[in-house]
Amino acid sequence: MNTSENDVIARFTAVARSGASGGQLRLGIGDDGALFAPRPGYETIVTCDWFLEGTHFLRNLHPADAIGWKCLVRALSDIAAMGGAPKCFVLSLALPSGYTGEWLSRFLRGLRRAARKFACPLAGGDTTERREILISITALGEVRKGQAILRSGAKPGDAIFVSGVLGEADLGLKLLRRAGPHGTKTDSALRKHLYPEPRLGLGKWLSNRRLASAMMDLSDGLSTDLTRLCRASGIGARMEAAKLPSARLSESAGRSEIKNLDPISLVLNGGDDYELLFTVPQRAVRRIPNLFQGIPLTPIGEITRDRRVMLVTPNSEVRIASGGWDPFRRRSK
Amino acid sequence: MNTSENDVIARFTAVARSGASGGQLRLGIGDDGALFAPRPGYETIVTCDWFLEGTHFLRNLHPADAIGWKCLVRALSDIAAMGGAPKCFVLSLALPSGYTGEWLSRFLRGLRRAARKFACPLAGGDTTERREILISITALGEVRKGQAILRSGAKPGDAIFVSGVLGEADLGLKLLRRAGPHGTKTDSALRKHLYPEPRLGLGKWLSNRRLASAMMDLSDGLSTDLTRLCRASGIGARMEAAKLPSARLSESAGRSEIKNLDPISLVLNGGDDYELLFTVPQRAVRRIPNLFQGIPLTPIGEITRDRRVMLVTPNSEVRIASGGWDPFRRRSK
Repeated sequence: MNTSENDVIARFTAVARSGASGGQLRLGIGDDGALFAPRPGYETIVTCDWFLEGTHFLRNLHPADAIGWKCLVRALSDIAAMGGAPKCFVLSLALPSGYTGEWLSRFLRGLRRAARKFACPLAGGDTTERREILISITALGEVRKGQAILRSGAKPGDAIFVSGVLGEADLGLKLLRRAGPHGTKTDSALRKHLYPEPRLGLGKWLSNRRLASAMMDLSDGLSTDLTRLCRASGIGARMEAAKLPSARLSESAGRSEIKNLDPISLVLNGGDDYELLFTVPQRAVRRIPNLFQGIPLTPIGEITRDRRVMLVTPNSEVRIASGGWDPFRRRSK
Repeated sequence: MNTSENDVIARFTAVARSGASGGQLRLGIGDDGALFAPRPGYETIVTCDWFLEGTHFLRNLHPADAIGWKCLVRALSDIAAMGGAPKCFVLSLALPSGYTGEWLSRFLRGLRRAARKFACPLAGGDTTERREILISITALGEVRKGQAILRSGAKPGDAIFVSGVLGEADLGLKLLRRAGPHGTKTDSALRKHLYPEPRLGLGKWLSNRRLASAMMDLSDGLSTDLTRLCRASGIGARMEAAKLPSARLSESAGRSEIKNLDPISLVLNGGDDYELLFTVPQRAVRRIPNLFQGIPLTPIGEITRDRRVMLVTPNSEVRIASGGWDPFRRRSK
């Protein structure tokens, strides 16, 4: 192979040019850094995410374009969760030498599609050769000063909402593992796993109208993420099991795949949904629609003064421990 | 080991709090993203860098605190090279499970020391478990609107300057390989390799006084980096070999280590110096001092209309090809 780093950079430059014109991106790839022109009255959101072979995706299972799409969407989901709009991103990419041809083209196609769709151009990066595929993305977003929705603002009595259907992405992963890389991509759970959509419109709407007291995105599973929100706000939560918008309710996946799964466990512990978890003061609850841009918004419980996270079923009330994704804890999942 | 991701995050939060108060960092670690408040009249510099075990450092050779120090300095050097001031950074860190104890403490000590010294607090991050130590840093800086110094501004006739002594960091690496991790750290070449200093004061001074027409940092070796600057500016360069501020001229390293090295090759191809390469219009050359804050500034040649990069010796004039660090090219070095 004769690819040099300069060649790889040149291919990225082409992607950046064909991507969304940020307007505020004054200088993109090719210098020591990018130059971003913030707007007066706005704060800059900064968020970074790993996307690593073996940890977050499998080289031989996940299509390269889905890897390109998803590595950006994960970071954009964090921006959505603060009520912001994405502005640009930088990419650290390490690739095996045999992957700078067709694989890289497909990866860049998925990345470019997400960059265009969500108006978030590639601003720069660092590439190197490596045995494994390693990706780290840092995205910048903007939010009006004082309007970012934090994890720490939930108050006792607030209603807890989630967007979309939970556990679907995890179900999609299970379908993908069964069907392999050449299985159908038309299943909605599989699509959700491979090509999630950041809830940018919803996050911004909640921020502009100041409807949510706290918000975060669901990346590691509801049990883990709600526990984090509760800890940040110094409160607890009561969820009603019957209200959880479970992937089981989705008609997309074949019944046979679902039969052996525990739907509650899927909802509580399934990661990668990139839906929004937010809390709404009681006086504002009636202003939250059932559907926002086609995405269901479901009230699943209430914030409590007691710092525990509880799940209420018709017969029991159990304390929930974080059961979602934690890379530093050994689990069998 | 019982470390969970939340525990690791808590330790980072402690570091961020004890680090420099950014002032403009409105919200740090612990939410979906950080919030940075840009100042009116300034643009934001964004730059990201890999720092990977095996590629950029060796786990058993490089002290953990030097890895912590250097991973941040590499990104800050890019900000220096645009004439900016650092503001905050985010860290993607992957560690083997046995490294979240003493190793992480030492790493964070080096990182915190750099964050404090260069007033660049940790704003957020993503941590995961991995067989190898992987680091990606994205740093944000600020520069007055219109005052960033790009790679693309060099004009024929401009003088070419470099700061500091070149090849010293590469010499330090050679010393380290010989002496091992417990060798002396007092040698200046070794210090330069382990604890480089970003040339932030110099970069900002050149930007504020608008003295440099183009600038970049020397991370991959003079031959590679000058070639990049020339390509970005659409010009060429003539360097005089006798003028290159070679590590050989430094008294720091023992003579025996130097004897077998080609000093010119060390200067041209040795990476990791994090010095500044900049061009100065002839009318401004007399305003460049010999020393800036103790750092020598050396004119090494001139920008030419011809797009080649030439090295002039008393007996010859040879065309220089990029010979520095390129992760996608196989080289024996």
